[in-house]
Amino acid sequence: MNRRNFAALAAASAAACAMSEAGFGRQQPAAHVSTEADVNQAMQLAMTKGPRLQIAMLVYPEFTALDLIGPHTFLGGLMNASVHLVWKDRSPVPLDRGGTALLPTTTLAECPRNLDVLFVPGGPGIVDVMQEQSSLDFLADRGLRAKYVTAVCTGSILLGAAGLLRGYKATSHWAYRDLLPLFGAVAVNQRVVTDRNRITGGGVTAGIDFGLTLLSTLFGENLAKAIQLANEYDPHPPFDAGTPEKAGLQITQAVLAQIGPRLEKVRELARKMNIQ
Amino acid sequence: MNRRNFAALAAASAAACAMSEAGFGRQQPAAHVSTEADVNQAMQLAMTKGPRLQIAMLVYPEFTALDLIGPHTFLGGLMNASVHLVWKDRSPVPLDRGGTALLPTTTLAECPRNLDVLFVPGGPGIVDVMQEQSSLDFLADRGLRAKYVTAVCTGSILLGAAGLLRGYKATSHWAYRDLLPLFGAVAVNQRVVTDRNRITGGGVTAGIDFGLTLLSTLFGENLAKAIQLANEYDPHPPFDAGTPEKAGLQITQAVLAQIGPRLEKVRELARKMNIQ
Repeated sequence: MNRRNFAALAAASAAACAMSEAGFGRQQPAAHVSTEADVNQAMQLAMTKGPRLQIAMLVYPEFTALDLIGPHTFLGGLMNASVHLVWKDRSPVPLDRGGTALLPTTTLAECPRNLDVLFVPGGPGIVDVMQEQSSLDFLADRGLRAKYVTAVCTGSILLGAAGLLRGYKATSHWAYRDLLPLFGAVAVNQRVVTDRNRITGGGVTAGIDFGLTLLSTLFGENLAKAIQLANEYDPHPPFDAGTPEKAGLQITQAVLAQIGPRLEKVRELARKMNIQ
Repeated sequence: MNRRNFAALAAASAAACAMSEAGFGRQQPAAHVSTEADVNQAMQLAMTKGPRLQIAMLVYPEFTALDLIGPHTFLGGLMNASVHLVWKDRSPVPLDRGGTALLPTTTLAECPRNLDVLFVPGGPGIVDVMQEQSSLDFLADRGLRAKYVTAVCTGSILLGAAGLLRGYKATSHWAYRDLLPLFGAVAVNQRVVTDRNRITGGGVTAGIDFGLTLLSTLFGENLAKAIQLANEYDPHPPFDAGTPEKAGLQITQAVLAQIGPRLEKVRELARKMNIQ
């Protein structure tokens, strides 16, 4: 699929949203656009550009690509959404594995100030970002103005470190979820957690469920379902080991043994920040 | 998670594999390594490097990042796997959406000749790659030698175009699956299809189920389950629209209307190649 594939659906969805009951600012996102007429209209309006939502996704050295690429895939092909990958400069940003890197599309300084969506992925690089005041200032600035403030995996730790989760329910990677109260958040054990305009997802692959939830919130269920079909999201995990409860003690202990040192470092940093 | 996180599991898994019943070439991958002792051994061997599997993942302009990033996330952090992202040169390769690009790690010319795994993602860029003899020659050359020849989404169309699916069962993105017989393959409607050393996955998000299946094949179930837990793969799609049957006629027609022109172009190219 490329950006033209869903231009039709996105454009029509925006058009339908403009008439919907759930108006929310100038972009008029709606939660439920689900009649046959909307889908047909989508096809007819293939070449019509709607107003563009401004979506900024933070990237940083050693972020986990899969946290970001799920929602990026769903949003990046829409004609009426501008998706910015934001970091300090436009140099390639190394992923947390595989020796490769992704190119940012804009800088912290040049990122639009008034965002429809601020999104933060997780990854081992959070340890450094937590200690960089300029990055936290960027998140706090854009987050206080954004219509939706969102994260997947340990991206929510960065939202917390920027003071954006005080008094909000949120989730994170299962091993890090219990750190959220250190930032004044209420930790919830759920795949995707929505509390007012904060939407957070669990670890890594939760970005896909998060992405569809966000799409539905912004453009309605019909578009979310069409994107789900286009990306054939009908999961059939070959094993049932996606949570500590399901994986059992041995596997969980093996994973925790590897995660442990970083988890303790993040806990230590979180305590020092004294944000709650 | 970064590469050190699962060094332990990967190293121990390789060690355990060496003693297993399912020897397969020098790397001795095994399908079932699932005792408590293996997990404990994994933790003890954290700093031990095993022999490195050579894994090459093709990238090309306008590939779909999510096809690749699922399996790449699972494999890219293993200490005993070298994961190469391969294209003509090392310039950034544009994704099919979002205005960003990923850096290859090596070139078609420099890619190891004897691979443990050859992997091809899908995306709109297949239309160009199908018409580039040098790329198809690369796939045919490495594919004939590789221990496992694999693809996700329309990546299987490229395997077919390189003559690598003649007489094999395979799958692809649901809209493209019926083209597989044009390359002499037997199309199977299944999330992940394994036929001898060919392993193919369905559209886009199927890369995650494919990735865990491949991990289990290479390193055993225990490592696959640990990686599943580490990446919290416990999917909860907010909607049930991941196949045409589940999405229903209206949504499916809307998606097909967008996909249609490219699908017909690929069909036309496939017929001209006359591979079956």
